[in-house]
Amino acid sequence: MFDRLWDDLAPIGRHAATGGYRRYTFGGPDPELRDWFHRAAADAGLDVETDGNGNMWAWWGAPGPDAVVTGSHLDSVPDGGAYDGPLGVVSALAAVAELRRRGVRPRRPVAVAVFAEEEGARFGVPCLGSRLLTGALAPERAAALADPSGTTWAQAMEQVGLDPDRMGPDPERLARIGCFIELHVEQGRALADLDRAVGAARSIWPHGRWRWTFTGRADHAGTTRLEDRRDPMLPMARMVLAARAAAAEHGAVATVGRVEAEPNGTNAIASRVRAWLDARAPGAESLDKVVGDVAAEVRRAAADQGVAADEHQESDTPVVEFDGGLRDRVAAVAGGADGPAPVLPTGAGHDAGVLAGSVPTAMLFVRNPTGVSHSPEEYAERADCHAGVWALADVLQDLAGGEA
Amino acid sequence: MFDRLWDDLAPIGRHAATGGYRRYTFGGPDPELRDWFHRAAADAGLDVETDGNGNMWAWWGAPGPDAVVTGSHLDSVPDGGAYDGPLGVVSALAAVAELRRRGVRPRRPVAVAVFAEEEGARFGVPCLGSRLLTGALAPERAAALADPSGTTWAQAMEQVGLDPDRMGPDPERLARIGCFIELHVEQGRALADLDRAVGAARSIWPHGRWRWTFTGRADHAGTTRLEDRRDPMLPMARMVLAARAAAAEHGAVATVGRVEAEPNGTNAIASRVRAWLDARAPGAESLDKVVGDVAAEVRRAAADQGVAADEHQESDTPVVEFDGGLRDRVAAVAGGADGPAPVLPTGAGHDAGVLAGSVPTAMLFVRNPTGVSHSPEEYAERADCHAGVWALADVLQDLAGGEA
Repeated sequence: MFDRLWDDLAPIGRHAATGGYRRYTFGGPDPELRDWFHRAAADAGLDVETDGNGNMWAWWGAPGPDAVVTGSHLDSVPDGGAYDGPLGVVSALAAVAELRRRGVRPRRPVAVAVFAEEEGARFGVPCLGSRLLTGALAPERAAALADPSGTTWAQAMEQVGLDPDRMGPDPERLARIGCFIELHVEQGRALADLDRAVGAARSIWPHGRWRWTFTGRADHAGTTRLEDRRDPMLPMARMVLAARAAAAEHGAVATVGRVEAEPNGTNAIASRVRAWLDARAPGAESLDKVVGDVAAEVRRAAADQGVAADEHQESDTPVVEFDGGLRDRVAAVAGGADGPAPVLPTGAGHDAGVLAGSVPTAMLFVRNPTGVSHSPEEYAERADCHAGVWALADVLQDLAGGEA
Repeated sequence: MFDRLWDDLAPIGRHAATGGYRRYTFGGPDPELRDWFHRAAADAGLDVETDGNGNMWAWWGAPGPDAVVTGSHLDSVPDGGAYDGPLGVVSALAAVAELRRRGVRPRRPVAVAVFAEEEGARFGVPCLGSRLLTGALAPERAAALADPSGTTWAQAMEQVGLDPDRMGPDPERLARIGCFIELHVEQGRALADLDRAVGAARSIWPHGRWRWTFTGRADHAGTTRLEDRRDPMLPMARMVLAARAAAAEHGAVATVGRVEAEPNGTNAIASRVRAWLDARAPGAESLDKVVGDVAAEVRRAAADQGVAADEHQESDTPVVEFDGGLRDRVAAVAGGADGPAPVLPTGAGHDAGVLAGSVPTAMLFVRNPTGVSHSPEEYAERADCHAGVWALADVLQDLAGGEA
């Protein structure tokens, strides 16, 4: 079941030249991805509904209460890998099929969820679908978020036939969820080092995104004296280096992966440069130190060049400690005969982290032999994917009851 | 005449939001600009022909030999100013009209030329039209140059109805040119400091463009340990800072105004970053030092990060010393009653610099009160523009003969 679903999904949104995925929410291949999920869920005997925030829910039995929900997301970063998100969705559907094969008739309702805009690749805020659902993000703020072409989240919803007026917190739907289990490819090499196929999550590092805008003055690259320049490229360069240095100093990670210069001409001094800082740390205090160190260096460098520096926090995710009781139960069941699955912290944000504020939540990780993620090279062995499906099926059976 | 031509041309290709010009060769407003030139030349009683390289020539009298040619270009950098290029074309047409008003009947043929792709903003190589004309660039190499969307120079020519098979050196046309005079807005404040409206060019600094490609590995910004990263953004940042430092040390200018990251996602370590170095110096030796210093620093920084660094020189323009006899004659005539026009070096490349290798060439500069160029803020007082037209008319009359 896993293999057929996986192979069916694989070509959708894959870029021919890079081999990476460009699955942006409500754009390009999004309708095809939604069709795929409707078909796959129907094949598994599930009824699909789309909520007011663009998330999809496939129900085994009547919806809620006290449902055991599993799932992940289908959107990707630009030129992302095949596993981050889709592995959790395909494994959830395959686990349901496995429970049916075992003849399990669950006592609690079971659902497979697909959350919208988990990566924030199009509208800048990650986990947008789950944040709207839980009320962590106000619908007015979400509606106004714009993609690089200026299309807003609300407009994009309308383009795929969704009604933006239905957007916002959905306490009724949330109340149906007894617990949420997200399976995800590991984004690191801890399981490979431990020689285990499946692990469970302990916590998610606090993290955030900060957009810096450096405004200088466009001018001729050949004729403007160095002392007359207000070149925003220079503080941007300092920011890139400061992010790495601050992360190393505070045991964190910090990245500038996105830079946009205007007018971006070879023989013109830039008028404006924007650069995005992604920072994550083991605790709130160390995260503050990283972001503060970068800001201090950036403001100094901008002032030196007569360049204006403006900081805007695009997202902010506090530390997430997953429910201890659920985590231990999930780890014990998922580990099977090998003993409890290893319990790991992670620097990556997930919808499970957002939902953890509202319902008991746990995560399963599937081994990633290289640790590479957000890249066409992201990979998991097929045998490990199958092990993940089995572990998830065991966990769902344990939680939903209904021995075969 | 100047005012009417100028106002007619001003709206074409101006971007509503930035106020800057986006006049890219053979794209967007290019056909409208060519129509404008045909109409304006016809009004001045000139016959227009387009050569095999996309340059336009408007002839007063039968073409060549020993013609006095003046002109400039109409293409712009991204969000460039109104004056860089167009001032020379409009002033040339206005000067011809002024000579007609004076009743001058020139003994030598006079022509107004508009060169294609002077800025290199679309295809990366500046002065492409004049380089092809003179044979400084091989037509095979030009044909393959591609814009950011992948359209080649040859394809773009076809799209505006030009035959790429006619591209290449044109010795017959070149042999008609007795001398070339380019009027240009000053890109600096020397004339403002000297309190003069018009100057002449002594030399153009040697300069070039180097494209650096840094290839690392895409990865997750939240989960990849610092020591496992191969982040190409870091050597790019070192390059920006090294360019400024090397320019300061060697009395030169160096700029990184263009940066492109892939996949350019906030939460993804970049897989590849490209950055362009524009460097110019008073002499070949100091230019070599600047470029060499930057390259040494960049290679070191890339190796530190496990990133591949590839350098490609996109263009190379040796120092240009304008013809001494012509320069002194032009400066004396252009200066008029105020005494010879000041003679200035410049860091900017021009078609006049390319043609200087084949024919006697001179340049006139018109005062720029702020010195700002390649920017929507580029400016010249209308009175100074008129003074430029008068100076150019006097120079053309002096060179072409035919007292009224």
